[in-house]
Amino acid sequence: MYGHFDQHAQGYWQLVPGANNNICDVDGVRVGHVQNLEGNAGTGVTALLPMQGNIYANKLPAGCAVINGFGKSTGLMQVAELGEIETPLLFTNTFGVETASHVLTRRAIAANPNIGRPEPTVKPMVFECNDGRVNDIQAIGVNEEMMHAALDQTDTDFAQGTVGAGTGMCTFGFAGGLGSASRLVEIDGQSFTLGAIVLSNFGQRSSLRVFGQNPVRYRGEDMPDKGSIIIVMATDLPMDSLQLNRLARRAGAALGRLGGHFGHQSGDIGLAFSTRNARKRDGAAVMVQERLADRFMDRVFLAGVEATENAILNALWHSEPHQGYDGSYLPRWRDLFEKEQL
Amino acid sequence: MYGHFDQHAQGYWQLVPGANNNICDVDGVRVGHVQNLEGNAGTGVTALLPMQGNIYANKLPAGCAVINGFGKSTGLMQVAELGEIETPLLFTNTFGVETASHVLTRRAIAANPNIGRPEPTVKPMVFECNDGRVNDIQAIGVNEEMMHAALDQTDTDFAQGTVGAGTGMCTFGFAGGLGSASRLVEIDGQSFTLGAIVLSNFGQRSSLRVFGQNPVRYRGEDMPDKGSIIIVMATDLPMDSLQLNRLARRAGAALGRLGGHFGHQSGDIGLAFSTRNARKRDGAAVMVQERLADRFMDRVFLAGVEATENAILNALWHSEPHQGYDGSYLPRWRDLFEKEQL
Amino acid sequence: MYGHFDQHAQGYWQLVPGANNNICDVDGVRVGHVQNLEGNAGTGVTALLPMQGNIYANKLPAGCAVINGFGKSTGLMQVAELGEIETPLLFTNTFGVETASHVLTRRAIAANPNIGRPEPTVKPMVFECNDGRVNDIQAIGVNEEMMHAALDQTDTDFAQGTVGAGTGMCTFGFAGGLGSASRLVEIDGQSFTLGAIVLSNFGQRSSLRVFGQNPVRYRGEDMPDKGSIIIVMATDLPMDSLQLNRLARRAGAALGRLGGHFGHQSGDIGLAFSTRNARKRDGAAVMVQERLADRFMDRVFLAGVEATENAILNALWHSEPHQGYDGSYLPRWRDLFEKEQL
Amino acid sequence: MYGHFDQHAQGYWQLVPGANNNICDVDGVRVGHVQNLEGNAGTGVTALLPMQGNIYANKLPAGCAVINGFGKSTGLMQVAELGEIETPLLFTNTFGVETASHVLTRRAIAANPNIGRPEPTVKPMVFECNDGRVNDIQAIGVNEEMMHAALDQTDTDFAQGTVGAGTGMCTFGFAGGLGSASRLVEIDGQSFTLGAIVLSNFGQRSSLRVFGQNPVRYRGEDMPDKGSIIIVMATDLPMDSLQLNRLARRAGAALGRLGGHFGHQSGDIGLAFSTRNARKRDGAAVMVQERLADRFMDRVFLAGVEATENAILNALWHSEPHQGYDGSYLPRWRDLFEKEQL
Repeated sequence: MYGHFDQHAQGYWQLVPGANNNICDVDGVRVGHVQNLEGNAGTGVTALLPMQGNIYANKLPAGCAVINGFGKSTGLMQVAELGEIETPLLFTNTFGVETASHVLTRRAIAANPNIGRPEPTVKPMVFECNDGRVNDIQAIGVNEEMMHAALDQTDTDFAQGTVGAGTGMCTFGFAGGLGSASRLVEIDGQSFTLGAIVLSNFGQRSSLRVFGQNPVRYRGEDMPDKGSIIIVMATDLPMDSLQLNRLARRAGAALGRLGGHFGHQSGDIGLAFSTRNARKRDGAAVMVQERLADRFMDRVFLAGVEATENAILNALWHSEPHQGYDGSYLPRWRDLFEKEQL
Repeated sequence: MYGHFDQHAQGYWQLVPGANNNICDVDGVRVGHVQNLEGNAGTGVTALLPMQGNIYANKLPAGCAVINGFGKSTGLMQVAELGEIETPLLFTNTFGVETASHVLTRRAIAANPNIGRPEPTVKPMVFECNDGRVNDIQAIGVNEEMMHAALDQTDTDFAQGTVGAGTGMCTFGFAGGLGSASRLVEIDGQSFTLGAIVLSNFGQRSSLRVFGQNPVRYRGEDMPDKGSIIIVMATDLPMDSLQLNRLARRAGAALGRLGGHFGHQSGDIGLAFSTRNARKRDGAAVMVQERLADRFMDRVFLAGVEATENAILNALWHSEPHQGYDGSYLPRWRDLFEKEQL
Repeated sequence: MYGHFDQHAQGYWQLVPGANNNICDVDGVRVGHVQNLEGNAGTGVTALLPMQGNIYANKLPAGCAVINGFGKSTGLMQVAELGEIETPLLFTNTFGVETASHVLTRRAIAANPNIGRPEPTVKPMVFECNDGRVNDIQAIGVNEEMMHAALDQTDTDFAQGTVGAGTGMCTFGFAGGLGSASRLVEIDGQSFTLGAIVLSNFGQRSSLRVFGQNPVRYRGEDMPDKGSIIIVMATDLPMDSLQLNRLARRAGAALGRLGGHFGHQSGDIGLAFSTRNARKRDGAAVMVQERLADRFMDRVFLAGVEATENAILNALWHSEPHQGYDGSYLPRWRDLFEKEQL
Repeated sequence: MYGHFDQHAQGYWQLVPGANNNICDVDGVRVGHVQNLEGNAGTGVTALLPMQGNIYANKLPAGCAVINGFGKSTGLMQVAELGEIETPLLFTNTFGVETASHVLTRRAIAANPNIGRPEPTVKPMVFECNDGRVNDIQAIGVNEEMMHAALDQTDTDFAQGTVGAGTGMCTFGFAGGLGSASRLVEIDGQSFTLGAIVLSNFGQRSSLRVFGQNPVRYRGEDMPDKGSIIIVMATDLPMDSLQLNRLARRAGAALGRLGGHFGHQSGDIGLAFSTRNARKRDGAAVMVQERLADRFMDRVFLAGVEATENAILNALWHSEPHQGYDGSYLPRWRDLFEKEQL
């Protein structure tokens, strides 16, 4: 059920994953990657389409949470204000934010020529972590073509680990990366899906806790935690923006489960969106929408926490070891985890 | 070092506790309890003095975090605005908030007769959880005398578990309660102390994770999570209000470590204050203050997370089993935990 | 159209008021007052029913804004978290908050016996300003009977000025008070109503600006601004909680129009609720709701600002001069305003 | 004293401006402009240096306020988290944000080669408004050279109106722009300065209120309000980050004074910083800082509101009429204002 974690997860996870245990279990969501491994580069781009079609003309309800705000991600102020997203999401390294914003803006204009005249401008949604340990970040190894390529080759099937934007990331002192997972939420006889995707670049080895394994065994020389983590959740539950804000905030509980403490230099950012109740540009003055009753919220929150925890562990599981640009070696967590289980 | 948790904590906790591993390791802080166990009552009051002397005339820098805002605690709006506390803290059950506020107001006026004329009014600081499972809360089993008594008998030595405001509380389906812990923070050759105290009333048994124990063993019939948790941190580190806001937010990481998910019906509230840099009522127009450099903040955050986690486990450890007012039986967690270790 | 302000408002106000230019133009809203003028008292209570019937079982969508958080109002943390109100509103003086909370809690329990067992507890909504200039606030001149009376005698017709909770208040150095106004919002051929009620106790005489009158004429000896203002808006527009948060924030623009600067010691609080889309306790898991399209929001915001500005001026207009408890005399603003127009 | 507004301001403004009534009255602050008027362009860049020297190594305490978050300004999340700024400020049009961010990042790296390896990355501070009415914004008329030039030619003497980033802006339906003003704050016999600079692009003509002039006279065909306003305040008052947050929030009161209502599509952003108590990168673990006592805060808030109001009026006063790219004509406000005074 939980794949490679089946034997360990018992008693720790309570909810069942969707068909592929990733965010694309939520209907309409697609993910694509591009990486750059040439020379001193070890970086990349990941794109997420929240829906098929023109999202600028069909904005989706969204909420966000700044768990720690030491970061350069962009677009959150408008999500907090309006409770919606209006572009695909791009994940990349810190110094790629401007290029990613530019590409999302240009593509939105191409599909909606009235943007900026007379329609409002568009707010691109770009998330970043600093892969400056593995990647020579000052060389800015991502470019417009990579952004376009990631957006153009999204699919419901996608790789995890040291891929895309996760290529040069470092989680609890191990290589990687990019991970995803999902959970089913049963409400009143109906089944809904909640998926999470993370760009994970946080934590010190000495802090990691996984399924009760004694973290002392993970220790070694400890590198300072300078990273960040981006957590995006998607769901087909009909939730309004305030409910999605609350869901996004739960990402923090998942970080705690794994031993995180919301590091000082970390951009720990949560975003949650619903694929239901799209707000059509030219829709009726008063739209009819569905809203989940709050009394079911604990189940949703638990799904969000489990999907996030599982997604971070998937990022670790799928990652390959990495020789950092700065000379440090990032080992594969899976090796230590499996040895532990013997 | 960690007392009853010494053999389990290895590898999980990284920092060393203060002399007594409780919040009174922070110089000047005192705690006192009163309980009411008559008839259907199973409730009480806990008082915390942040400093000796007149706090209204010597306000302390403070910050707060609303991790989930389903609660009736009072005073947080003003802490968020001004970044300071100006009364002792009272912890009690939900329906005792008004009485506690009244008592704190009256005592502040007694010590500062100009309050309200012409000085500003005073903002009492009262925290609550709902002990309505153990305690017949509609009967309002706390009164003014109990509030005064708790405030008058504070000491640096205090009981934990099912005592004071923790008497009728329920944590992860077990009895209790009120707990505390502390950690030392070494910075540049100087030793500072950070202490936490919790009024813990949250979590479902099926979610609990302790030092990697397979939580499946804690399972049984699961009661819905309807509780809350109050986390107060004190420190002699010279931190400004914004830094203390950030520290208070880390309480959420500790809840995650133990398996919490910030429940929908939970009032999960963090408050952090510093005993340094008191703001004197009639002090200079421009005061000189000390401020910890941000580059040491990770150590402070880790101390906050560990002290909070330890405090919640101490609340569980020291609690006695309880026959709930509503007929449910709250067992002693220690029994199951110790059996597990054999 | 604007009553006593008809000749001045031209060019300043753009929207048309509802039938009675008060908050009860919003269907279902009722207001009631009680005051205490005995001895050194000069205080009172105002109650507002957001709807007829059991609001705890039919919570209304709401949003709030803390413009300046130096205040003791209670209930806002839960509004911010859940986006709803679940009790009537009580307005009173600072030291009456506990009594008002107690009465609202008791009445909610009487109508919903399961509150606290096993249903969640109830969060009373109480707003306060400090009438300590006119009223001997330490004597606490409000009591439970007054709270009940105010709640029991609400009507769609109510007095304004130095009445109810506004009895001892002071606005820009003048007497009063309690005021209300409304505006119509035309959207897509349909007419909606937005009403505001204020408990106004803020501002220095030297700052007041009204319809372009040279404020220098209002000057005289200036008392320090130590007050607060509560602004509550009601509407039958179908707005979700996030939209209502945004609306509540606009109260700040109205304070600026009149010359306010969000005083340091001021509890400047906005609350906005919609009478549409009540959330039924035992309703469907997925409820169908209406939501106003954001592209009409400017009209709503303007209505909120105008209704608030008009409500504050109405509070001033209807107030009677007052001999303060502290010896200061609060004159009638209307006298100066009318003389000015000659 | 107030220059061109001397005869009108009496009774409206209470505080005295600094020597030049602009933000450079705050010692160390410098401003520079570049514009592009070729072809369909009508846009530009304004740079503000908060201090002389390396601000990345000497971060300044700062606070911010999102009055309405429909905007693309960047850097605010980190200001909110850490309470400091670490780069100069650039103001430009909406689609220039990425270029401006890039330039600020590059310049910070040039001065601090360890940025990103191993020091943290740098968070550029870029503010934008949409000049898409006057300027063909899709053509992106700003570039890296302009950003560098604006930063390189800052001075304590600078133009206002339709210059720099204000070139294509539109305020209450009139041309412009960029404005600035200052106020002196006397505290305990010492004189401090607070300055404001605005990039103003908000408001509908029908809403404008200036010194009590009947706004009906400003009416005409009304364009929808689609703009934004950026308000930056600088001061040599020793204020901590929380106090600066509170100051930044007061920008909203100034918008209200002029008739603004915080428009739905507006990015209304306030930033306030202090030139005192720079946080040195390699400073002591515990730094000694000065902090203004809160009891003087009303004077500071009033200075912030007056400086902001005056800065917006200065932007209007100094602006030249403009033929918009979209064909609309933006008249000079000064002409109507002066005619009015006859």
